[in-house]
Amino acid sequence: MSPEFNLIQQYFTRPSHHTNLGVGDDAALISPSAGMELAISADMLVADTHFFSDADAYSIGWKSLAVNVSDMAAMGANPKWATLAIALPEINHAWLAEFSRGLFACAKEFDVDLIGGDTTRGPLTISVQIMGEVPAGQAIKRSGAKLEDDIWVSGCLGAAATGLAHLQKKVVMPAGELQIGLAALHTPQPRVALGLALRTIANSCIDISDGLLADLGHILEASQLSARLDLALIPTLDFIHHNLQQPAFQHYLLAGGDDYELCFTAAKSNREKIVQLGQTLGLPLSRIGETCEESTENPAHIIVEFQQQTVNITKRGFDHFE
Amino acid sequence: MSPEFNLIQQYFTRPSHHTNLGVGDDAALISPSAGMELAISADMLVADTHFFSDADAYSIGWKSLAVNVSDMAAMGANPKWATLAIALPEINHAWLAEFSRGLFACAKEFDVDLIGGDTTRGPLTISVQIMGEVPAGQAIKRSGAKLEDDIWVSGCLGAAATGLAHLQKKVVMPAGELQIGLAALHTPQPRVALGLALRTIANSCIDISDGLLADLGHILEASQLSARLDLALIPTLDFIHHNLQQPAFQHYLLAGGDDYELCFTAAKSNREKIVQLGQTLGLPLSRIGETCEESTENPAHIIVEFQQQTVNITKRGFDHFE
Repeated sequence: MSPEFNLIQQYFTRPSHHTNLGVGDDAALISPSAGMELAISADMLVADTHFFSDADAYSIGWKSLAVNVSDMAAMGANPKWATLAIALPEINHAWLAEFSRGLFACAKEFDVDLIGGDTTRGPLTISVQIMGEVPAGQAIKRSGAKLEDDIWVSGCLGAAATGLAHLQKKVVMPAGELQIGLAALHTPQPRVALGLALRTIANSCIDISDGLLADLGHILEASQLSARLDLALIPTLDFIHHNLQQPAFQHYLLAGGDDYELCFTAAKSNREKIVQLGQTLGLPLSRIGETCEESTENPAHIIVEFQQQTVNITKRGFDHFE
Repeated sequence: MSPEFNLIQQYFTRPSHHTNLGVGDDAALISPSAGMELAISADMLVADTHFFSDADAYSIGWKSLAVNVSDMAAMGANPKWATLAIALPEINHAWLAEFSRGLFACAKEFDVDLIGGDTTRGPLTISVQIMGEVPAGQAIKRSGAKLEDDIWVSGCLGAAATGLAHLQKKVVMPAGELQIGLAALHTPQPRVALGLALRTIANSCIDISDGLLADLGHILEASQLSARLDLALIPTLDFIHHNLQQPAFQHYLLAGGDDYELCFTAAKSNREKIVQLGQTLGLPLSRIGETCEESTENPAHIIVEFQQQTVNITKRGFDHFE
């Protein structure tokens, strides 16, 4: 057997739970359940764009799958199968062992089968595609937001971006919150249980990968609406909250990205249900604003208010080509 | 809208044929047909490993999808959906226009919907995942070869490898065959119609991407068999055939790779059916050897004979980590 074939056998083959034929043939075979639509998404992570090459391989493995699982959560889909294509500059067995340990830790946590793989030589690049199931017609689309919907977010925003800023020596975080920030940055927790519960509650949903404003912006574009947010209501770390007068901290919170929390809209009549859902899941769900009519001149516009002032926003989120 | 979002909208969104929700949400939505299994495969192409960075972008686009379509053909699956993740060093609109033209030319030829995409900044790397359908239980696996099966290949082998050798100035091909070699190298033609027809005829099948010996080797490993081939029976260009005494040409033919023809095994009783199938498809199908029992000391062994001599084989195929 060739070394390349061995890498897949050695590091990326584990018993599967939902799969007819897994790693090792020209293709894997799966049987989606009756009455289900398949939700499919792909994300690519590039060294030194999405993670530091010298970051610990366990985290890179976890995050590679987690960001894809997060896309399933955002659709209200149950993640089940993933494929991995990875380019490696060389065969580093210690790195591969840690990377696969992180990847499979995430796979186990969310009951995802890794069903296929491709390894090749090249600059470190990781491409994961994920597939999940959602009852036909129940996926939560970006385009479903209604006028005067409440806008909600899960968890705490800005932690990953501020953790990264700390690593880049732009800020100095207190030890306790630094730990939260680095955990958010390296091992994000996709909100699958929330996504599944939101199928019958939310009108639209997205996961926050590029930053709240950029991702909420995608909901607004798809739904032809604008929005009004109250900066003070956006859930975040105390360290960020206390510094919110500074544009840099407004940026971490609104546009830093890498949050992997869900942003969703829902009718006002669902407020109580959503509060209860947050309690059931042990996950804070915060109402941060509402949708409003868009104007022709300024479509999908987001007004952010802070202490009765409008915040001046220059940059909506992280874009790899800006 | 962000530039990244625009790239997907601008270059990678076309009307879909089999898709409930295509590019533009957190995930695409598809409904597999009743009674079908889904076949899923992923391949990654890295600049200067799998193609020259300065190769024409149309060919890179075609080939990125074609090598994945070829995996569907090898399973007897009908390709239907694909996702694309691509890292680009910069936004080059002329390149993207040509790349997407090539990709969609292949998509149109094989009726594949591009249902999702991710673009990011990084060294030029293209990762495609493909999904197709096959009636439950009818996929052609590598593990199904039987003792004393005939071994068949489609088309002509060695053309792409010899075309590459010409570009690398290792050989000088005559003009007519050079054209065939470069076409095979740049715009391979996956054998989907053949794969579909082989569901009820072949016992095992693989597509030849890494070279005949390497890929036939995968069938033999999975089926616990060995094989005997006759070098003179392997269909190839006259230019290669006339030079078969030279080890370099034996290598192009047996181990050069990038052929994207199918290698399959079938019972001897199916010979006539297979010959007729080749005529129906207008695609040469050549019987090149047969499977035999493997020995414990030398499992999945391939003996290649040429003019009553055994060919000494040192390298089975292309491996990205050798």
